Amino acid sequence: MKLCSFTKDGKAGYGLVTDSGIVDLGKRLPEPTLRDLLAADGLARAATFANAPADYAFDAVEQAPVIPNPDKIICVGLNYHAHIEETGREETVNPVLFARYAGSQIGHEQALIKPLESDEFDYEGELAVIIGKEGRRIPEANALDFVAGYACYNDGSVRDWQKHTHQFMPGKTFAGTGAFGPWMVTADEIPDPTTLHLQTRLNGEVVQDTGLNLLVTSIPRLIAYCSTILPLLPGDVIVSGTPGGVGARRKPPLWMRDGDVCEVEISSIGTLRNPVKAEA
Amino acid sequence: MKLCSFTKDGKAGYGLVTDSGIVDLGKRLPEPTLRDLLAADGLARAATFANAPADYAFDAVEQAPVIPNPDKIICVGLNYHAHIEETGREETVNPVLFARYAGSQIGHEQALIKPLESDEFDYEGELAVIIGKEGRRIPEANALDFVAGYACYNDGSVRDWQKHTHQFMPGKTFAGTGAFGPWMVTADEIPDPTTLHLQTRLNGEVVQDTGLNLLVTSIPRLIAYCSTILPLLPGDVIVSGTPGGVGARRKPPLWMRDGDVCEVEISSIGTLRNPVKAEA
Repeated sequence: MKLCSFTKDGKAGYGLVTDSGIVDLGKRLPEPTLRDLLAADGLARAATFANAPADYAFDAVEQAPVIPNPDKIICVGLNYHAHIEETGREETVNPVLFARYAGSQIGHEQALIKPLESDEFDYEGELAVIIGKEGRRIPEANALDFVAGYACYNDGSVRDWQKHTHQFMPGKTFAGTGAFGPWMVTADEIPDPTTLHLQTRLNGEVVQDTGLNLLVTSIPRLIAYCSTILPLLPGDVIVSGTPGGVGARRKPPLWMRDGDVCEVEISSIGTLRNPVKAEA
Repeated sequence: MKLCSFTKDGKAGYGLVTDSGIVDLGKRLPEPTLRDLLAADGLARAATFANAPADYAFDAVEQAPVIPNPDKIICVGLNYHAHIEETGREETVNPVLFARYAGSQIGHEQALIKPLESDEFDYEGELAVIIGKEGRRIPEANALDFVAGYACYNDGSVRDWQKHTHQFMPGKTFAGTGAFGPWMVTADEIPDPTTLHLQTRLNGEVVQDTGLNLLVTSIPRLIAYCSTILPLLPGDVIVSGTPGGVGARRKPPLWMRDGDVCEVEISSIGTLRNPVKAEA
């Protein structure tokens, strides 16, 4: 099952994505948001509308981030050997974690915003893991039971601000830089995320390409580690890290510019596509 | 004016703190939370109840974090020379920022939780700045106009987890480690935060003592820098950094243990007091 969040006539909603379009679940279920649906353990109720007629064509609404209002977005850095190598950093025993604020997110087909303050705007194609139920100190062995689904994420990075100090966060949470979509595919359809394949394309050219089996810290271990720190809640998002091929480490560097189009495609999920717009 | 958030009979509320106790504002105003009150520019309406009879003694309710549900908590690291020196780090041109998640916060007199996973639980007394109105790219010159008020913060730090990698966040957001209180003093009573004085005490012994005039990056510049990244919203919290004297840098190190009491006192604000409880 595919679930998305959107804005229609200025009003926030969420729905089930079928071959014919979007079945508006906000009109049919008591929960006002997809995060609330997950918190109410409502995926089975949502699934009863899988054969309902679509209310809108998928392109007739403005897509929002899959979860527009997560309690936590936990980003993982340096989680593929090819990316660790290109940055010249050392591999760490524990995962490298930093935060993105929810207000920095955008949906599928919305513009990635290159801020006024920088010309070093970089893509990072990643797999997003969406938590389905609350848990603290979740054992690695059954961590995948806590996953509601998966989506594509473009962790757009303002590299000079990321390097202002040793802490990455400022460059990782500019307004309009975190693209999250096009929808969430529920975990029942992806029993083993290591089988997935991720590709990032800039203006159609492949710039990142990896199997999810190459993650340094696996999805179950990320869930176990993060949930040791504080409870994971339904709708929380773990953005699992980017593979090699980022623009900052190319010679010459490859930055995203006004008018570019960046896509993150993950097998069994779909393609997140975003135009790039420079602030004027 | 002093404003606090609390729980009374299991229900969240907020109020005005007077010499006789708490005037319950949630019962008198349409906004359900202090964050909502700030977003509705409601401080003048709140002030009309300054002479109302108190509904509860201050100690008769369970104190909550001043803002329990901020959109953003932005923590500043290494923002006093004495602390930079004791850590052996270099001073950076731009502020060192990392995030804390709202779910890690506690209120005045609630227990600071030393997690099972660590014995390196450290205090960090800090001044918290609470934003009163939305702004992006706020000029330094009028940045203080965007401040609703000030409070005390104990940015409880799990040092070994903070040092798992180069990114601080894991050690800075354990459940029950961010104490925020006892109330917010509105900015009209503190026209110049550099005049404030901060003291942290562990079991009554002074362990940190500084003037706020010693901040490396000033409050106005922090507001300008953070708001360049993404909009600051009413209720957002900037935790402005800790002075020298942290437990980790003492010889031998001084860690917080079960049964300890940690206080952060700031002149013109008050004293945030929290017992320490080790998870069993």
